[in-house]
Amino acid sequence: MKALKSLGTQIYAMRYQLKIEVSLKPGHSDPEGETTARLLNELGYKVETVNVSKVYSIFLEAESRKEAEMKAEEMCKRLLANPTKDNYSFVIEEEK
Amino acid sequence: MKALKSLGTQIYAMRYQLKIEVSLKPGHSDPEGETTARLLNELGYKVETVNVSKVYSIFLEAESRKEAEMKAEEMCKRLLANPTKDNYSFVIEEEK
Repeated sequence: MKALKSLGTQIYAMRYQLKIEVSLKPGHSDPEGETTARLLNELGYKVETVNVSKVYSIFLEAESRKEAEMKAEEMCKRLLANPTKDNYSFVIEEEK
Repeated sequence: MKALKSLGTQIYAMRYQLKIEVSLKPGHSDPEGETTARLLNELGYKVETVNVSKVYSIFLEAESRKEAEMKAEEMCKRLLANPTKDNYSFVIEEEK
């Protein structure tokens, strides 16, 4: 009886893959991008701007897609992106 | 007549946006990913692995989509990716 009750109230967590891209806001200097552009031009490629951004691939447990989205948003604000200089965007996939 | 001839042989370059993602091959240690995973867990998120990769957004002039693809492949091999430890993939969009 106890076992059944605990089964009944257990919440099954799903596993989601987040891909969070953090890039510099326009107007902020991107030394790595500038160096890459210069080197590519020196190698003979007709390259204009190069912007470098970072992608975090994260496996996260959450109860629903909605919760995973909320957590991704929070993670960006609390740790991954700097609000004064970074933009962020993310996609979420449910793990099979 | 000369002008017409030069017009006839001129090749118009197109502008393409490349998005090249460079990530570590599986099995290589990713200290930035490990630190991010630890910090996210300390903040209360049930996160497993975190992998960090880099995205280069490049505006490139090329004569055709085929040429842009060939150049993107070359850029990865010659500069952007280290064949012993990196995987790479890219998408190409024609600029409007």
